[in-house]
Amino acid sequence: MHIKKQRLLTPGPTPLYPKALQAMMGSEIHHRTQDFRDLYSSVLGDLKAVLGTGHDVLMLASSGTGAMEAAVTNCFSPGDRVIVCSAGKFGERWVELTRAFGLEVLVLSAPYGSVVEPAALAQALAANPDVMGVFVQASESSTGAAHDVRAMGEMVQRTAAVFIVDAITGIGSMPLDIDRWGLDIVIGGSQKAFMLPPGLAFLSISPKAWERMESARLPRYYFDLQREKKSAAKGESSWTPAIALILGLAEVLRYVKTLGMDQLIDNAQQLAAATRAACGALGLELFAPFNPSGAVTAVKAPPGLSSSVIVREFHEKFGSIIADGQGEMAGRIFRIAHLGYYDIADLFALVAELELILIAHGVPVELGRGVAAVQEYYARQKQLATV
Amino acid sequence: MHIKKQRLLTPGPTPLYPKALQAMMGSEIHHRTQDFRDLYSSVLGDLKAVLGTGHDVLMLASSGTGAMEAAVTNCFSPGDRVIVCSAGKFGERWVELTRAFGLEVLVLSAPYGSVVEPAALAQALAANPDVMGVFVQASESSTGAAHDVRAMGEMVQRTAAVFIVDAITGIGSMPLDIDRWGLDIVIGGSQKAFMLPPGLAFLSISPKAWERMESARLPRYYFDLQREKKSAAKGESSWTPAIALILGLAEVLRYVKTLGMDQLIDNAQQLAAATRAACGALGLELFAPFNPSGAVTAVKAPPGLSSSVIVREFHEKFGSIIADGQGEMAGRIFRIAHLGYYDIADLFALVAELELILIAHGVPVELGRGVAAVQEYYARQKQLATV
Repeated sequence: MHIKKQRLLTPGPTPLYPKALQAMMGSEIHHRTQDFRDLYSSVLGDLKAVLGTGHDVLMLASSGTGAMEAAVTNCFSPGDRVIVCSAGKFGERWVELTRAFGLEVLVLSAPYGSVVEPAALAQALAANPDVMGVFVQASESSTGAAHDVRAMGEMVQRTAAVFIVDAITGIGSMPLDIDRWGLDIVIGGSQKAFMLPPGLAFLSISPKAWERMESARLPRYYFDLQREKKSAAKGESSWTPAIALILGLAEVLRYVKTLGMDQLIDNAQQLAAATRAACGALGLELFAPFNPSGAVTAVKAPPGLSSSVIVREFHEKFGSIIADGQGEMAGRIFRIAHLGYYDIADLFALVAELELILIAHGVPVELGRGVAAVQEYYARQKQLATV
Repeated sequence: MHIKKQRLLTPGPTPLYPKALQAMMGSEIHHRTQDFRDLYSSVLGDLKAVLGTGHDVLMLASSGTGAMEAAVTNCFSPGDRVIVCSAGKFGERWVELTRAFGLEVLVLSAPYGSVVEPAALAQALAANPDVMGVFVQASESSTGAAHDVRAMGEMVQRTAAVFIVDAITGIGSMPLDIDRWGLDIVIGGSQKAFMLPPGLAFLSISPKAWERMESARLPRYYFDLQREKKSAAKGESSWTPAIALILGLAEVLRYVKTLGMDQLIDNAQQLAAATRAACGALGLELFAPFNPSGAVTAVKAPPGLSSSVIVREFHEKFGSIIADGQGEMAGRIFRIAHLGYYDIADLFALVAELELILIAHGVPVELGRGVAAVQEYYARQKQLATV
């Protein structure tokens, strides 16, 4: 057995930012002290700055799904009609969640690998003027496709509906102009572009959404956003906060501010583009070629080879943990992530490993060809002459 | 600015083993307690097992050079005649050290990149029957060359001299049969194949060396090995031990025992061979082609390009810290390390980066060609069919 470093390379949890992990060791503090209130206020402020929004930003001790539930329970009343734009596993989660709380759900669905086109939403909104909310994924990480939330937001803005965007893998992997595009609630999570372990969720909340909450009657307690807003104003969380993660987040936000949020996004998008170039060079087919996400690239397994085998061999042969397809896509696609703490060296190694895995299964690839495609992409971006 | 992970890829300090770093957080213990004594005894026992020796093994809170000094001051008396086999910067350190303590030093030197041949030592030993000690580097990490310590040890064994081997980068990168080859003192350090930060040094000490210490009269106090041996027998160190590093070492030794010391060595040697293959494919010249070390490969900078520029660009462009030449070799060679916590994915990325650096300076390399050489080497080792 040789040395195989374990490398976490999935679309979430993503690779951890080492200085954040170190900062998490400082957790021996109490959350009802002025020191913590100062930390919490500063983290919320930095989060708002990094998200580039004037809207309120709140934080919850939960996974992203908790914040999704908060959006549902805080904005709606039993029987409200809503539209869910669903193009994958996470779209289906919106459907389940809204139905679980008794909303009347109109599902606009697109096949896995495609997206719901803004035109379809326009039509549905026109036909259903009583719709109270629209739900979507900015990046559908089960398929590697990205929705045009800008076009959608501008439509929903002109209606009474609130536009609720699961941007858990969208934040930090695609531009999101929250305020201008009419994104009323935007949801994020710590284990994505924020380079932390799971356990923290974030929401930005527009004035339109706050106004809606005045009349929304679904039951809520732990995820009561109005209460959370009042606590946040005092530098506190309503319930016990995830202290270690908040300490880590402070460190990540310092890093992201130094890097620049635009550069974090560009980093993911360039890694995604280089990954697509490598797939092309290796004759691999993309699962979502037309609306590719900057967060994750889903690649079809070559004929006769299960993606589950590819994923298993990444781990067994090289220690790399990448993502298989989810649900019905398991065995059919594997997913290479780009959002958060990834760099070009990660991709060099990953593509070299992929080539060796393919060749071991008789897939005719030329060794080094995919890596060269990544290098060529990199050289073009940096305007290096190549020979 | 995009994300660039800092990757420590030098021949020392080497990349850190994450579980060891985590274990170092448990340092809030006291060293004069039974808990610590149990830990210390067990670490010394594991170290002995991993080194595969029946000799005593001791540990010092110092860098490797401290253990080198201990070997000198504990084994010799003023004016003793010794032979130093010197083939680089670390050979020169033996010369400086032995002279600093008033020994009469006969230097057998080989040009940088070469090694002192066993035949030269045989001749010197025959001509100088009064020699009390022979010093050498198992792996001369300033040049990437390895000495034939086996042949040398078998010669010294037949004389009254003690054979003192700086194996700081040799342990874990080459086979060392300490007991059978007549290696009287073998020196190691935490920041090499032991995957830890610097601050711990180790020595194995043969009965012949212990016997010599009875009469050796050089002054010593902190590095008094006889005192240290008595302390170790009680599970203690003579002076305050480097507690965090010892906790980390316990974790590393657990890992190395699971992996197998032979596999740790094979890992380094295969990475070294694959690196040489990549250099060949890229038209780069090796600095020590004939006696290559498994610890580190020194590569000549291509004509007209300084290795210091290559090293700087690894860091600036990709965040990778590799080693330049030392002393007079700065600017002329760069060094790629293999010993300790390195894996094939590290090498894939490093070679891809090297190709891009070379091409940016007009060195005619085909992108992906060096990576492919590493992949082909890997595939041959694993007996994968390649297309």
